Amino acid sequence: MPLASSFSASLPAWLLADLDGLPRVLPTLEERMDLVNALADRNWREGSGGPFAAIVVDAATGELVSAGVNVVLASGLSSAHAEVTTLSLAQSALGRWDLGAAGADLQLVVNWRPCVMCYGATMWSGVRSLVVAGEGPLLEELTGFDEGPVVDDWDAQFEARGIRVTVGVRHDEAVAVFRAYGDSDSIVYNARGAVD
Amino acid sequence: MPLASSFSASLPAWLLADLDGLPRVLPTLEERMDLVNALADRNWREGSGGPFAAIVVDAATGELVSAGVNVVLASGLSSAHAEVTTLSLAQSALGRWDLGAAGADLQLVVNWRPCVMCYGATMWSGVRSLVVAGEGPLLEELTGFDEGPVVDDWDAQFEARGIRVTVGVRHDEAVAVFRAYGDSDSIVYNARGAVD
Repeated sequence: MPLASSFSASLPAWLLADLDGLPRVLPTLEERMDLVNALADRNWREGSGGPFAAIVVDAATGELVSAGVNVVLASGLSSAHAEVTTLSLAQSALGRWDLGAAGADLQLVVNWRPCVMCYGATMWSGVRSLVVAGEGPLLEELTGFDEGPVVDDWDAQFEARGIRVTVGVRHDEAVAVFRAYGDSDSIVYNARGAVD
Repeated sequence: MPLASSFSASLPAWLLADLDGLPRVLPTLEERMDLVNALADRNWREGSGGPFAAIVVDAATGELVSAGVNVVLASGLSSAHAEVTTLSLAQSALGRWDLGAAGADLQLVVNWRPCVMCYGATMWSGVRSLVVAGEGPLLEELTGFDEGPVVDDWDAQFEARGIRVTVGVRHDEAVAVFRAYGDSDSIVYNARGAVD
């Protein structure tokens, strides 16, 4: 078998079809998270991946820079979580790996505190702020996903690197998505499952 | 500006040119790390990214499944560290996100303990073992890179998820690569730099 020399991931067909219709400006944090929750809910119901979505916006204006979902199942790549996908789409659109270059103040909005991989991916992306609907074990309890070990002072570690953190936007609505997913018979696709 | 709908990353030209010439079977851990160290050293000297490389092999036979390097600068994607790149190439070659499916016993070999993002990426990939040349702050001291906050019991967390960890293969040779990089004037491209 020849060695692979490239890899790629694309948004699922249902989101591609809707992409032009997404709101291009989301002034409030609540509007931003409403879009994320809606995409997350649609994603698992469409079978594209887990109940996770994210957007990158201009923090001040709310201009939409990228929107993405978890496409692990659709792409065959275990790293294609919502955050990695969405950050990569933003970087592809802007043509640079550092989303904070040239004084840009970009924000990642996601429907829960990132897993340990996406925690790091957020840290290295150049976004200047992170907005999440919630944190803590409730996500794992409702969905069965393993989020991995993240340091206790995770938010202080972001702040120390110049990344502002806001927790608790549209919390109950995010939990409702996870609960619906957990009540379904969808695949939980952490390799070999969560720790007992 | 239209929203991006896909992203991709490729190996740099120098590695593409050498890909067919890579050894396809690496029986010992030392042979595996020798290849990783050689690719890591070449990578920063070619300007493709940081001094990091990784391979995925069959743990028992040493058959090479994928080889990759850090292509953050070349791809414009901040998540394209050596581990994410190499795991994604392996998944693309095998056509599945779970490298541990069907009883496969695949191993990630990398030239230092992964950063916090790649720590999670390794955990979710399905590899059954991780081999690193070393761990600890020496990498950050020599290169200036921020590796992010990783939990103190990082190796036990892998073992609890069925991922065996081996530390210390070709340690001095790996350190020599980092030292040469640190002594050069190469770009350290963590967004906004390391924490003081």
